Amino acid sequence: MRKQKRLRWEKLQTWGIRKTERKRLVIVGGGFAGLHLIRNLQKSDIQVVLIDKRNHHTFQPLLYQVATSGLEADAVAYPLRKPLRRHPDYHFRMAEVKLIKAGDNVIVTNRGALAYDYLVIATGARTNYFGIESIQKHALPMKSVDEALKIRNRILQNFEDALLTHDPHERQKLTNVVIAGGGPTGVELAGSIAEFRRYIMPKDYADLDTERSRIYLIELLPELLASMSDEASAKSELYLQQLGVNIKKETKILSYNGEIVETDGENIPAKTMIWTGGVSGAFPEGINDELITKKGRIKADTTGKVKGYERIFALGDVASIETDEYPNGYPQLASVAVQQGKFMAENIIRMSKGKPLKPFKYKNNGTMATIGRKKAVVDLPGLKFQGAAAWLVWLGVHLFSLVGFKNRLVTFINWAWSYIRYDRETRLIIKD
Amino acid sequence: MRKQKRLRWEKLQTWGIRKTERKRLVIVGGGFAGLHLIRNLQKSDIQVVLIDKRNHHTFQPLLYQVATSGLEADAVAYPLRKPLRRHPDYHFRMAEVKLIKAGDNVIVTNRGALAYDYLVIATGARTNYFGIESIQKHALPMKSVDEALKIRNRILQNFEDALLTHDPHERQKLTNVVIAGGGPTGVELAGSIAEFRRYIMPKDYADLDTERSRIYLIELLPELLASMSDEASAKSELYLQQLGVNIKKETKILSYNGEIVETDGENIPAKTMIWTGGVSGAFPEGINDELITKKGRIKADTTGKVKGYERIFALGDVASIETDEYPNGYPQLASVAVQQGKFMAENIIRMSKGKPLKPFKYKNNGTMATIGRKKAVVDLPGLKFQGAAAWLVWLGVHLFSLVGFKNRLVTFINWAWSYIRYDRETRLIIKD
Repeated sequence: MRKQKRLRWEKLQTWGIRKTERKRLVIVGGGFAGLHLIRNLQKSDIQVVLIDKRNHHTFQPLLYQVATSGLEADAVAYPLRKPLRRHPDYHFRMAEVKLIKAGDNVIVTNRGALAYDYLVIATGARTNYFGIESIQKHALPMKSVDEALKIRNRILQNFEDALLTHDPHERQKLTNVVIAGGGPTGVELAGSIAEFRRYIMPKDYADLDTERSRIYLIELLPELLASMSDEASAKSELYLQQLGVNIKKETKILSYNGEIVETDGENIPAKTMIWTGGVSGAFPEGINDELITKKGRIKADTTGKVKGYERIFALGDVASIETDEYPNGYPQLASVAVQQGKFMAENIIRMSKGKPLKPFKYKNNGTMATIGRKKAVVDLPGLKFQGAAAWLVWLGVHLFSLVGFKNRLVTFINWAWSYIRYDRETRLIIKD
Repeated sequence: MRKQKRLRWEKLQTWGIRKTERKRLVIVGGGFAGLHLIRNLQKSDIQVVLIDKRNHHTFQPLLYQVATSGLEADAVAYPLRKPLRRHPDYHFRMAEVKLIKAGDNVIVTNRGALAYDYLVIATGARTNYFGIESIQKHALPMKSVDEALKIRNRILQNFEDALLTHDPHERQKLTNVVIAGGGPTGVELAGSIAEFRRYIMPKDYADLDTERSRIYLIELLPELLASMSDEASAKSELYLQQLGVNIKKETKILSYNGEIVETDGENIPAKTMIWTGGVSGAFPEGINDELITKKGRIKADTTGKVKGYERIFALGDVASIETDEYPNGYPQLASVAVQQGKFMAENIIRMSKGKPLKPFKYKNNGTMATIGRKKAVVDLPGLKFQGAAAWLVWLGVHLFSLVGFKNRLVTFINWAWSYIRYDRETRLIIKD
């Protein structure tokens, strides 16, 4: 740290990235929006700098499978140094952006500062605990690979511990799992854990009465998958019930001390609570407060430009592009982020050539969620279906969307293995 | 903890494992020896209890590939609950054995105690720092999956940090790697890191002068792979030199403060030092001190029985079965442990039927080490060869030896990918 202070400001601005004649585009965040923006700049004549606090893109839609021993961590991650290897002027730096100094056209990170010509904020969303400190302290979030691995470790370790205790109450707490939030992530997690309990646990933990383990899915609203169709909500609930998940709707979680989940209904003993209750935009400091929505998103116009700034754009979960159809901004979905990333690449190239910016048009490709073997729900525009066909569509879409050929192959093998053998092999507790 | 104290001794002895008419065999450690013992008890009429502090077997010969981004962690691990799923009376418990009370035929763990009829100690070996505290504190060992992942994280993180500093001395320290110990593990690590530097780094870190990164392999003895043939030693040295590794033989490491490796020759700046300098037996307390060798191994007779004990056996790296040919015990190799595991299964079954024990006979199947693409050394009894043929033999043997079909398949894909693409995809820094 002392050494850094001695460095002069100009030095910190370079990070070894030379200013060339090309315009410098700085992208903050290598999620879906950032990655797809980059991939579409392959042939652009722009200097591209990507900054992320991790060195990999995370395929968040499959994190729940990492958390439930279905996939290895590496299969849902993709190195951020790789996408533009053939671009003559692409630079990745692993740092955390702390502040945007729009007046100076500079971003300040935990590791120094960097000037930009254009800045794209694609920082995504972070877990929102709605200010409940006890939940933030004891519950497990699931937005990154390491968080998913912590869930895997906790569930497996608790089952191991359940075999070593003679206190039946303690054993009950160790084998119960509470999932907070009945959105797609919560529903997929609940289904996957329920299948783990049904197919793996009785074989693995023959000594334990795994029937006694309880899985709770707690949702504040009167239905699961509230953002999807009524058919999808009803069917996902039915599927989860078939798998033995206890669904508590219209139930509010008040606190969690690591042992007891306190709700406005009953209190539930559980040493594992996974929090998928909500997200808010992960916006960096320095943007005019008036542009930040209640959900922590940055207001942008239809071209993605942050209102009142000439060189700053926002994309994906952190951006709120308000339209007549979506007065609170587009839904925080991977498909929106991917489309915005591709769109922004086009606009950046136009801008660098002095052409006017185009407005973003969202094409709704539908939404889907999987609950278990041959159990999924799909809402396409004008077509809704559930069951085995929906499950096959889900598998295909996710396999196809995964970044990197090797990741697809490894994922395919894992899925085929699970399907044939009713087994999951990545049941590894990595101790620290 | 308070609850545990209130439990009565008899309860602690059960862990829910009922005493049946079958004899109870307790095995401590699920490494090569323990796992292969268990796998050969499939049809035995014995109650089998395996205790390990981890829930997985670790395929240690390939840990170096996890450490160098070549393989995902899960591919070298195998769930210990799985091998005897069809056995009617197999129990796995995740605990750490602290003490053997041979007088009572009981083992005491960090999670309670358990009685045994027969006890097999297969606790393997742990990293030996030869009492040098500074090395123990700052160097990275590599005996488990989490330790291998820490090496991966450190190397990748240091390269990321090297791009964020403007101090050339700091950058040099961040990009240097020192490997202590020129045995098979050190040689394989050095080769793999050198290939990573040659094939991946220039593409990934185009901004960095990766040519300046130095890889040192430091060995106390006058040759590498001292346990192998002179041809293997000479050839492995040549291969490493071709890959640009700086080899320092007859060099003793005196201390390491996390920045500078102090040797009896020059001092080397490096923020990464991996310690493969030695191991000692990881024996539990309670065995008569006179039976513990200088290397921390437990003296056993040719049947594996610990001298002076009727019901206690020792196997694998922790056992020292002294013969005329091997006066200091068999070498601490996976192949010895595998053979002893299989042998012990036979003896246990004989013993349970009242038959006399057989002596162990080691069949030397040879040793091998790989340095890089088409570069390996193989010593078979009566046949020594090196190069591409040795490399193919190494690949085949290791793929075949991996436990679990899925692990083999995933490993095969990773290897094929690396071979064709000169690439390694598991370059993920998992932050905590």
